[in-house]
Amino acid sequence: MGWMSDESGLEKNEANYVPLTPLSHLRRASTVFSDRTAVIYGSHRKSYSEYYQRCSQLASALEKIGIKAGDVVATILPNIPAQAEAHFGVPACGAILNTINTRLDIGTISYIFEHGEAKVVFADTQFLSVVEAAMEKLSGPRRPTLIEVPDESAGFPATEKYETYESFLRTGNVDFDWIMPQDEWESLALNYTSGTTGKPKGVVYHHRGAYLMTMGTIVSWRMTLNPVFMAIVPLFHCNGWNHTWMMPVLGGSLVCCRDITSQAIYDAIADERVQYFGGAPIVLNMIVNTKETERRDFDHTVEVFTAGAPPAPATLLKIENLGFNVTQVYGLTETYGHVTECYWETEKWSELEGEQRASIKARQGIAFPMMEHITVMDQSMSDVPKDGKTQGEIMIRGNSVMKGYFKNKEATKEAFEGGYFHSGDIAVHHPDSYIQIADRAKDIIISGGENVSSVEVEGCLMSHPAVSLCAVVAKPDEKWGEVPCAFVELLDGARATEEELIKFSKEKLAGFKTPKKVIFQELPKTSTGKIQKFELRKSFG
Amino acid sequence: MGWMSDESGLEKNEANYVPLTPLSHLRRASTVFSDRTAVIYGSHRKSYSEYYQRCSQLASALEKIGIKAGDVVATILPNIPAQAEAHFGVPACGAILNTINTRLDIGTISYIFEHGEAKVVFADTQFLSVVEAAMEKLSGPRRPTLIEVPDESAGFPATEKYETYESFLRTGNVDFDWIMPQDEWESLALNYTSGTTGKPKGVVYHHRGAYLMTMGTIVSWRMTLNPVFMAIVPLFHCNGWNHTWMMPVLGGSLVCCRDITSQAIYDAIADERVQYFGGAPIVLNMIVNTKETERRDFDHTVEVFTAGAPPAPATLLKIENLGFNVTQVYGLTETYGHVTECYWETEKWSELEGEQRASIKARQGIAFPMMEHITVMDQSMSDVPKDGKTQGEIMIRGNSVMKGYFKNKEATKEAFEGGYFHSGDIAVHHPDSYIQIADRAKDIIISGGENVSSVEVEGCLMSHPAVSLCAVVAKPDEKWGEVPCAFVELLDGARATEEELIKFSKEKLAGFKTPKKVIFQELPKTSTGKIQKFELRKSFG
Repeated sequence: MGWMSDESGLEKNEANYVPLTPLSHLRRASTVFSDRTAVIYGSHRKSYSEYYQRCSQLASALEKIGIKAGDVVATILPNIPAQAEAHFGVPACGAILNTINTRLDIGTISYIFEHGEAKVVFADTQFLSVVEAAMEKLSGPRRPTLIEVPDESAGFPATEKYETYESFLRTGNVDFDWIMPQDEWESLALNYTSGTTGKPKGVVYHHRGAYLMTMGTIVSWRMTLNPVFMAIVPLFHCNGWNHTWMMPVLGGSLVCCRDITSQAIYDAIADERVQYFGGAPIVLNMIVNTKETERRDFDHTVEVFTAGAPPAPATLLKIENLGFNVTQVYGLTETYGHVTECYWETEKWSELEGEQRASIKARQGIAFPMMEHITVMDQSMSDVPKDGKTQGEIMIRGNSVMKGYFKNKEATKEAFEGGYFHSGDIAVHHPDSYIQIADRAKDIIISGGENVSSVEVEGCLMSHPAVSLCAVVAKPDEKWGEVPCAFVELLDGARATEEELIKFSKEKLAGFKTPKKVIFQELPKTSTGKIQKFELRKSFG
Repeated sequence: MGWMSDESGLEKNEANYVPLTPLSHLRRASTVFSDRTAVIYGSHRKSYSEYYQRCSQLASALEKIGIKAGDVVATILPNIPAQAEAHFGVPACGAILNTINTRLDIGTISYIFEHGEAKVVFADTQFLSVVEAAMEKLSGPRRPTLIEVPDESAGFPATEKYETYESFLRTGNVDFDWIMPQDEWESLALNYTSGTTGKPKGVVYHHRGAYLMTMGTIVSWRMTLNPVFMAIVPLFHCNGWNHTWMMPVLGGSLVCCRDITSQAIYDAIADERVQYFGGAPIVLNMIVNTKETERRDFDHTVEVFTAGAPPAPATLLKIENLGFNVTQVYGLTETYGHVTECYWETEKWSELEGEQRASIKARQGIAFPMMEHITVMDQSMSDVPKDGKTQGEIMIRGNSVMKGYFKNKEATKEAFEGGYFHSGDIAVHHPDSYIQIADRAKDIIISGGENVSSVEVEGCLMSHPAVSLCAVVAKPDEKWGEVPCAFVELLDGARATEEELIKFSKEKLAGFKTPKKVIFQELPKTSTGKIQKFELRKSFG
């Protein structure tokens, strides 16, 4: 390859080779953006130099209680400053950050403690009893050290049973010399995927991937210096799409959002001038369904990145009129969050409106700049034609892909078969290279030998004025094998009958795609607002 | 460090580890931005898919004539499309790009051919006779293969003595499979520094550094998608600050600028809507000195990045009123171009005007995000205090630093002494972490034991209404050791006498800083417009 005739003297050295790590971003920001506001949470307002000092104290305090490089430190925290600080303070002592979903059940948390081998756990007072119960269930004698993170402003004062976060911080030195990775492949974070079946898998992130994720995201999201960003996506999901690690690059302000309510969102936009946030479609729904009287005025455009499912045409139309610009992104825990974006070609599409506009925005889009190759392949791992029709699996190659699953060689090998990460998502490739998810493999309904895309049927139902949210799954059927069955949440005060919705669908869809049954109920959701279709399928036994 | 208790199955593989290279940017752009305009030069307009195909043909054609990975391919070209294509096509066949300054003398070009071991040279018809003469002077029997790049539109039709670029391209396959680096430390480019004394040194760039340079530049320069950028800085200087490699990340358009005239600049801004360019202060001067009748109207702000010397207060004031926003950046060939930027703190400085504004804009600023540590150190390699007064040397650490000097172990070792790249530039560190160059070590004038900063004296003279450009150097003096001597270019039609300028300086500067002599003459400049002070010093024998 590209080596010169004489490479002597051209080796790596400390001046020209530094392992890539998001830790560098905060170190740089602590000097170049020292006075700028880094973190905001109610009356908590810290500048970059203060933020850096608090993270240094956290790293130092962890080292003092014996945490060594390579140890795992867990958190069970909502989006509060301590969670942001853990993203730097934990790796700054060489340890690996394991953010745990606050909504998990006791058994699963206990499993994660055991499997992840956490030495320390930072737990919010609200979730303390669950954490205590999970500790009790541990089989071995080893117990992680528990540090309590009270939040009086949210109604969760310290129980005084454990050392508190602030008192723990005070034991650390503000001038602690950060332990930077010697190799950018070292582990940075451990994230358990919620997995619909079986035990959760521990996805391992490397420093290099997180660094490149932050650079690529800024480029593609059209962010410039000193943005105000609100953390709505929980930091325990893909480390909040790596945004906490990204903000110091830009000297931006991170607004923490503990409880996701439309009031909290509107207040942050109006009072803190939040310009960017990411959130599941459920958050978009929350915004459009906010009563007129509860809205706040603001005069800038808010950029919203949504993932998990395409935004429904009706929601898109409404939210864009309210001052929000919505862009869909796509990714998985295994890819540090978003790796494709439905980049809007203004010149080409500026005149599209309504359904047409929504149909483009429903695409998962093109690869982010930090990714190398994202494509759609058939089972023999050949690219499917870019015809917008032929289905295949989304395959991903790039530097923002996990190291693998912790202590699970088999699953890792399977996921990386043939040199690509297998997403498990079924998609088509459009002629203009945009990727669009047809369905999760397991979400396809096969009715009388015809494939029915649940996404298509859901899109149809969502355009009905009374429908707030819906999910379509396969219902076993003697004659057809499977038929589409719709589960529907109606808007507050709106009404519609099963017959009405079936008739409405028939006018728009082929007969075999029309739902044969409509059930009105609240839909079961994951903590990110993703609808849990496997729960719905259970109703058919 | 941060390795988990069990790392088995967590190794690098093809899916999660891809060597960083700017080649990836164009590969991605060829699909995600396929229809967008990539390169513009008069009537030459190529989309990203066409650009990619032409680069593929170039790589393939080179391979067909026997160019192997690690071979050096040279260019002696102005900023025309062939030069941009060489930035991708040469490394895409595994070779190393050696862009040679078109203004060098025969002897130096011959030395570079010999030292760099170029196998092929692409030469513009305008410089063909110089190249031929340089070939003649080669001592060994080996001659690089010469490919002629005619430019009829500029008055340089093919001589028909050599194979032309377009005919060479046609011998290559459009579907050539690019040879990507197996290791991101592989060599990408070889750039000879003009060096004021001795033979030029060959600075070697690695793929990793160029990739990170592109990402960091976008972030700090507030660039968003699809910008229009004009290449004024010659691509043979630090590969045009790596902008050719950067544009595909954003799907932007590169406007080539063969001859730098104020008409070419204004036309490109008005007709192609150029939004960004970089250039030496001489280019800024050219713009402000353009006659009213030769200016073109435009209604957007043009972002200009300038390097080489701080923009003079008077120039700044004038150019900003013409619709240009000027930002000073700083770097060296050894650092791929810019590594610090005088980032403008709008909130803090919005009300500054005139001299105050210029005095901030005169700073070299803070580190770009891809850099790890840029500081000012004393001779024992300790940081100087951030007091804006104590002088030291700018020291640089980060991933956009060269591998070293080709076949020059000693100079490489010296440059990297103590784990930092030694810039050779003398600066102060301000309390807000901004770095400001006091002087090149050799540019400091020591008069009667007092240090006189030539930059300060020059700034004073530039504020005189008749002065277009000036340079202050040390003149040997029997009494004082050295005294400041000013060389001055006056504005067209303006007049000023030596006495007048000395008097003007005396009113603003300390006596020992006042120039004792003023000489009116055209200043000798390097190809980037840097004034060659060593030439001026020669007048004192």
